[in-house]
Amino acid sequence: MPYEFKHTRRVEFAETDMAGIMHFSNFFRMMEAAEHAFFRSLGFTIHEVEEDATIGWPRVSASCDYRAPLRFEEEVEIHLIVAEVRSRSIRYQFIFRKVGDGTEVARGNVAAVCTTVDKTTGKLVPVLIPDRIRAKISAAPPELLRTPAAA
Amino acid sequence: MPYEFKHTRRVEFAETDMAGIMHFSNFFRMMEAAEHAFFRSLGFTIHEVEEDATIGWPRVSASCDYRAPLRFEEEVEIHLIVAEVRSRSIRYQFIFRKVGDGTEVARGNVAAVCTTVDKTTGKLVPVLIPDRIRAKISAAPPELLRTPAAA
Amino acid sequence: MPYEFKHTRRVEFAETDMAGIMHFSNFFRMMEAAEHAFFRSLGFTIHEVEEDATIGWPRVSASCDYRAPLRFEEEVEIHLIVAEVRSRSIRYQFIFRKVGDGTEVARGNVAAVCTTVDKTTGKLVPVLIPDRIRAKISAAPPELLRTPAAA
Amino acid sequence: MPYEFKHTRRVEFAETDMAGIMHFSNFFRMMEAAEHAFFRSLGFTIHEVEEDATIGWPRVSASCDYRAPLRFEEEVEIHLIVAEVRSRSIRYQFIFRKVGDGTEVARGNVAAVCTTVDKTTGKLVPVLIPDRIRAKISAAPPELLRTPAAA
Repeated sequence: MPYEFKHTRRVEFAETDMAGIMHFSNFFRMMEAAEHAFFRSLGFTIHEVEEDATIGWPRVSASCDYRAPLRFEEEVEIHLIVAEVRSRSIRYQFIFRKVGDGTEVARGNVAAVCTTVDKTTGKLVPVLIPDRIRAKISAAPPELLRTPAAA
Repeated sequence: MPYEFKHTRRVEFAETDMAGIMHFSNFFRMMEAAEHAFFRSLGFTIHEVEEDATIGWPRVSASCDYRAPLRFEEEVEIHLIVAEVRSRSIRYQFIFRKVGDGTEVARGNVAAVCTTVDKTTGKLVPVLIPDRIRAKISAAPPELLRTPAAA
Repeated sequence: MPYEFKHTRRVEFAETDMAGIMHFSNFFRMMEAAEHAFFRSLGFTIHEVEEDATIGWPRVSASCDYRAPLRFEEEVEIHLIVAEVRSRSIRYQFIFRKVGDGTEVARGNVAAVCTTVDKTTGKLVPVLIPDRIRAKISAAPPELLRTPAAA
Repeated sequence: MPYEFKHTRRVEFAETDMAGIMHFSNFFRMMEAAEHAFFRSLGFTIHEVEEDATIGWPRVSASCDYRAPLRFEEEVEIHLIVAEVRSRSIRYQFIFRKVGDGTEVARGNVAAVCTTVDKTTGKLVPVLIPDRIRAKISAAPPELLRTPAAA
């Protein structure tokens, strides 16, 4: 079962800031873009109707460690690794590497919880991950994650 | 009846780009922020439920002429002027001036159409502007708009 | 000489807004992304050093007419057409079409001026478009632009 | 010496996503906006020339735990607390609370390193925090930080 995925993006001008590098918040948008591309690769979409209820995946936590900047027009590979699959949430690790020389530029983590909108209160409530999704996603073998985290 | 409004914003770091100036797309976000502050000043919100239907205001056109850049931490006044009120749409003009010396840095236009979501098709469809909104917004006197457009 | 270019993008989650559609300001970011991809296709970059001076292309005007919304994960083709090449500026037209059914969803215009940073004042000043760039970009034949503008 | 600061922001339409809530990446932009407002309150700017060298503060890490969503037009107070001041870096904690009922919606951390641009290589290199900045910022008393982190 799939537990990793690679997605490539090129840094756009609007993603840079006056320091001449990609704004740090955009690493989080790229993690999410990789997650959604992973879902598409499995035949799912991240925002989908399941028995008349919209399933969504809001984040419960997100973090990123930055090692080197990304600059305009550089291509970056976002390597998604499924770190953990629980009954109502999935945790991902992301490694950012420059296309070309493979330099690791950043490393991130995102935990997303499977939710639906409660029809009475309008609030987001956690639900069990639908079987058809759980059937296709598994956690990566620990070796893959044991890459030195902050070395 | 109100036909103009002033909203002030300070340029944030994430709004700049590697050229060291505010990214041109953010002028459009500031126009929208001024429009929404105008609605709030009248007791409305731009996204609101009217007899069980959500009223929204998608844009049909938007434009901006740029005269001078805005830089990080500069404060800018966005002067909204109602250019036209039609049965289903409103057109606004926006003048951007630096707080302090009053330099005009940009001038924009946005036309927004009043819509609701058709419950059968899920599509956005234009509707008459609700009376309680029309009753509070009027077009500005032509003199106010006749400021030299591209001088 | 090249006078048109096609660039494809998929709408990301972070580009949508609470109305469930791509935020209107992101059409401007996509126009710019297409312009930069056009430059790359010619062997240039939009932000480059020419005889010790950085050449940039700030916008003098930008506009967009919206016909239909774009939604999450939809693919859109941005068709760039060079509308005019002047000594210090270039004007582009952009047609947005959904990949698949080819529906036109938006049409935009951007005029960008070739500038450098004045080393004394730090201000952006217009300069002649470098020959090596002018030698590779021409205006499209008028027929291509004469597609009905706001029909 | 100052070790905390409060900054208030209202959620803008362009900051929401199709799930109807503020996109999670914008919490990071708000943390940065609070940090910059803190610097302004001390008479500094985050991007400034010190003896002919531009001092900048790129992030080395950033994280956020989300407890509740923020919605369009809600006002949020971002409470910045200086967690640690080292010779070349500062670490901040941020608590997000809804204006009105004071509900905590998120909690974040950012570590930023003081850098300048090496004139030979063009790379960002860490430098000692200038004395005039260190003289004005101190770490908060531990009690302030010992609020339950993930309760």
